[in-house]
Amino acid sequence: MHRVRVRVVEDALDANNTIARANRADFDRHGVTVVNLMGAPGAGKTALLERLLEDPLPGVRIGVLEGDVEGSLDADRLAGLHVPVTQINTAAGFGGECHLDANMVRSALGTVPLDEIDMLLIENVGNLVCPAEFRVGEDARVMVTSVTEGEDKPLKYPLMFRACDLVMVNKVDLLPHLDIDLDLLLHRIDKVHPDVPTLVVSGRTGAGVDAVRDWLGQLHATRAGARV
Amino acid sequence: MHRVRVRVVEDALDANNTIARANRADFDRHGVTVVNLMGAPGAGKTALLERLLEDPLPGVRIGVLEGDVEGSLDADRLAGLHVPVTQINTAAGFGGECHLDANMVRSALGTVPLDEIDMLLIENVGNLVCPAEFRVGEDARVMVTSVTEGEDKPLKYPLMFRACDLVMVNKVDLLPHLDIDLDLLLHRIDKVHPDVPTLVVSGRTGAGVDAVRDWLGQLHATRAGARV
Repeated sequence: MHRVRVRVVEDALDANNTIARANRADFDRHGVTVVNLMGAPGAGKTALLERLLEDPLPGVRIGVLEGDVEGSLDADRLAGLHVPVTQINTAAGFGGECHLDANMVRSALGTVPLDEIDMLLIENVGNLVCPAEFRVGEDARVMVTSVTEGEDKPLKYPLMFRACDLVMVNKVDLLPHLDIDLDLLLHRIDKVHPDVPTLVVSGRTGAGVDAVRDWLGQLHATRAGARV
Repeated sequence: MHRVRVRVVEDALDANNTIARANRADFDRHGVTVVNLMGAPGAGKTALLERLLEDPLPGVRIGVLEGDVEGSLDADRLAGLHVPVTQINTAAGFGGECHLDANMVRSALGTVPLDEIDMLLIENVGNLVCPAEFRVGEDARVMVTSVTEGEDKPLKYPLMFRACDLVMVNKVDLLPHLDIDLDLLLHRIDKVHPDVPTLVVSGRTGAGVDAVRDWLGQLHATRAGARV
């Protein structure tokens, strides 16, 4: 049975990549830079999005695509921030998918106003494993890891840390109350993914969020330059 | 393609349940009570296991089966606690599985000294979605949710909260430093899974861990009584 299963999974990933390329072509045609935001449940992805969206990125209109197994809590949280937010629920398929895939994103594109935005931030389902295996047509993959999760996560979930173009280390406001060694965490991120940029942030206090805004602005400028 | 995929998944779950029943029969034959411990990455599953194992459960010899995508960090952490620990890595299959299944547990049973233990604690891969869908032959499913993850998790990952026989709400030592409403979290757990027992605990300070020990002792006594 195992060999059949591997074959089915490989076929599914091939099909996913084909659809991801189609998504990417659509995004490029509209000049939209796309970021796939990943991290464990409770890492603080939505709180960071709220902080990011409080202040505009100069010249970059942002839209959000929210992926959740069930419900629209996160989309509701972001609804007050005057950016277009679209919800995808993965529970519609079997049992509840633990990640977004290219086809789910494609199905939602009809309701994303690609003509009215310059950047689409896609918040993936909270999970440190499978989202890293499914491209959705993004330009960059960004992950959030919280200091409350411990300094062992890069070693235990290396695929996710390797897949990312930026790692945000969140909840640093809690450092005085934790036993975690931040330097060791940063060292391990670098060991698993040498030279990946890291930004130390707090969704609660807003610390470091301007640097995230700068990184996103630069990503958009680079992508826009490449499309000309 | 979607219908084929659902069919493949259903077949896989059927096959999993068959193997889970075989595991359960083996556990019963050895008089071993089995707990499947689940939760998000960084919820504090291993830290709680460490606390639990510091003091013996009267008359209950414990063994541990550690599930991780890669590495043996958690098994190494527990190695000093004088209980038999077996490591399963899910990376051996495709890319890295995000959960344990019955067959992975079955493959490891040869190295678990079932004759020398009364209870096997299986620490699943950190994930709030898929582990809830795969029985491994356990008597009870226990989850850990940390107060740092926010009070929205029961609504966003209801299948996991519904699947469990006990919910441990961990890291309550951090409550003074968080904005979370503990009562709201407990209310939402009860809304998603009415009357499920909850225990408020701290792996860091040890608060509430005696109550977990009592719950496990009672589970073992009940199971042992049922087997006679």
